[in-house]
Amino acid sequence: MNQRVQGVRLPVGFSASGIGCGIKKNGKKDLALIFSELKCHAAACFTTNKIKAAPLQVSARHLAKTPPQAVVINSGNANCMTGRKGLESASFVASSVSAALGLRACEVFVSSTGIIGKILPAEKIVKGLPLLIDKLSPTGIKDAAQAILTTDTFAKIVTRKFKLGSSQATIVGIAKGAGMIAPAMKSGTMLAYILTDAAVDPMALKSFFSLAVDRSFNSITIDGCMSTNDTALILANGGAGNKALDGKGDDSRVFFNALSEVSLDLAKLIVLDGEGATKFIEVKVQGAADEKEARGFALKVAESSLFKCAMFGEDPNWGRVAAALGSFGVVLHPEKLDISLNGRMVLRKGSPVELKVAGLLKPKNIFLSIDLHSGDGEARVYTSDLSYEYVRINAEYN
Amino acid sequence: MNQRVQGVRLPVGFSASGIGCGIKKNGKKDLALIFSELKCHAAACFTTNKIKAAPLQVSARHLAKTPPQAVVINSGNANCMTGRKGLESASFVASSVSAALGLRACEVFVSSTGIIGKILPAEKIVKGLPLLIDKLSPTGIKDAAQAILTTDTFAKIVTRKFKLGSSQATIVGIAKGAGMIAPAMKSGTMLAYILTDAAVDPMALKSFFSLAVDRSFNSITIDGCMSTNDTALILANGGAGNKALDGKGDDSRVFFNALSEVSLDLAKLIVLDGEGATKFIEVKVQGAADEKEARGFALKVAESSLFKCAMFGEDPNWGRVAAALGSFGVVLHPEKLDISLNGRMVLRKGSPVELKVAGLLKPKNIFLSIDLHSGDGEARVYTSDLSYEYVRINAEYN
Repeated sequence: MNQRVQGVRLPVGFSASGIGCGIKKNGKKDLALIFSELKCHAAACFTTNKIKAAPLQVSARHLAKTPPQAVVINSGNANCMTGRKGLESASFVASSVSAALGLRACEVFVSSTGIIGKILPAEKIVKGLPLLIDKLSPTGIKDAAQAILTTDTFAKIVTRKFKLGSSQATIVGIAKGAGMIAPAMKSGTMLAYILTDAAVDPMALKSFFSLAVDRSFNSITIDGCMSTNDTALILANGGAGNKALDGKGDDSRVFFNALSEVSLDLAKLIVLDGEGATKFIEVKVQGAADEKEARGFALKVAESSLFKCAMFGEDPNWGRVAAALGSFGVVLHPEKLDISLNGRMVLRKGSPVELKVAGLLKPKNIFLSIDLHSGDGEARVYTSDLSYEYVRINAEYN
Repeated sequence: MNQRVQGVRLPVGFSASGIGCGIKKNGKKDLALIFSELKCHAAACFTTNKIKAAPLQVSARHLAKTPPQAVVINSGNANCMTGRKGLESASFVASSVSAALGLRACEVFVSSTGIIGKILPAEKIVKGLPLLIDKLSPTGIKDAAQAILTTDTFAKIVTRKFKLGSSQATIVGIAKGAGMIAPAMKSGTMLAYILTDAAVDPMALKSFFSLAVDRSFNSITIDGCMSTNDTALILANGGAGNKALDGKGDDSRVFFNALSEVSLDLAKLIVLDGEGATKFIEVKVQGAADEKEARGFALKVAESSLFKCAMFGEDPNWGRVAAALGSFGVVLHPEKLDISLNGRMVLRKGSPVELKVAGLLKPKNIFLSIDLHSGDGEARVYTSDLSYEYVRINAEYN
């Protein structure tokens, strides 16, 4: 989960860049480009919000035709609720990028993040393209990772190297998050791009990515608010030269494990950088009917404002945990319920354990463990606390 | 909605009292009693949380046998997650009250509110009963209303007088709220008791109350957290001497209107007294498929932390309204969407209206109006903003 990766080199065949093109008024980087000189296989997840920003609509349409070879992302403007003009702007950006890179327009994937309801200044993006393309480099991912940030306080890059047969393969992922984070990629204004030179069959890639996303980006929540722009994309260009993975066998497992780690590390970095977060909270639920139900219970706790305020106040108020569990709508047995906080049992079989441990919740990392004793389902969810700072950031955001 | 009702007189046949019996450490009132010397008809709604506090389980069991003639409520302890001992305490309180008042135990309705997971000090309640009964009075509702408060800052009493034929009838309601308020009585640690001397048939009473509760207590949200103890109860003792209402005709309408007004006023008072609230926000959704869908959309907005922070910051950020609407899971047409704030249109047919009105959200009362232009369904929902103070109260609550 160490994000301070210096000089990360992209997987074979990939290059990236990031510049400031003037969308952000403070002159910070706001335009990123990712390019694969090799054809890719791809899989993507978009927000389930019924209001989908223009770039998601355009990218989904492109993706239905062919996998992308280039991804262009701007921050500072979400290009959402911008009507027909927004769709035109997103298409215009895609076709400008494709023309400059010698691709077809449908081979360009576009993303935007930032404020809703303002017309995207597409001309600034197009004007920035020559420099952006000029800067494309196998070590340019750090610039790209910075260019996609909004209220984030640090760039999020995670990488893994692994062997597939005799081939060396790499996964590099970048993400941004910070606010409006809820699991409904199901998740917030969350963007994640994962690049690999592993050769993976398209169907295997889709199922690997779907499961990895469920256990990472769909298992985090900061404020329960679902964005209109969430996107997670994986590109696999086969540059590593391995025998294409079909989802079975050791190599597939090695790849899936690496992908899961990269996704989960990125997701945790998003939570660590949650708006106003002073705590990093892991909520583990076991003993549910199945993994999905366990995740549902865990998210209900992780989304409870009362629980999150208690964590900010370092108050081991397990009553709020129980109330949140009960509000999930699935039957549970209070008399079987175990709850532990940072390794100390506070509720055993539904009975309070009288135990005053001073400073139990003092550490930044809080581990809440819940056992429903009603099945084998287990899931882990990650969240932050609710602090004065969250309120300040979101009261003053403009 | 004026809660400063001096010397409220209860409907014919009712008396009430409130005292401090030592559950609250600060010596404040924490025990309330409501008594009807006449037999009652009754209807009740309980939380839909799967974890239900002991008094709710006991009261539901009693209610299934016979309508109550007495209600005993304590604050300072929720008697929730207290296992078998909690059920025994609640039953012990009920039977002690029934013995003192010459009733059967099943004619006593018990409620508790306060901290979860602490054993109820039933002996303190029983010790307080002689004084509590001694103080029963037709003007004692103010004491009762004070005794049920927790983090509330003021007592909530609402009353209406009306004619049924030639009979004068009265409704008096009290409530408490403040935190853990979400619509799933569906609502938070919300207690509401509505007393009337109108004669109403049991079936009519149930359907009147159910609809009134949906449009009032189930239409408010403070933090989206659902309590384990929510209860709303209506008692109708027929003391007014009117011809019993059967749900049809003018008199039934007069009664339903009065009941709706009392319920809605109490619900609004709960929002006004929301933890840390600096704004009173009314969210109206029209143009939905039906009332239920309209309420669902409105609640999604009212529960959005991002929207609530924006209101605290007086920022007319309609993008967060649109994002919250989209997250409800029902198809909507962004290109038809109208959004107004305090009477000024900020989004018209999905296009932003560039309009800088200084101080638009300066007033304490904020009226958000949303038109989906997709049907005749309309609903209103009430909420507060999310402030530093909410975080402070809930980080420091013990």
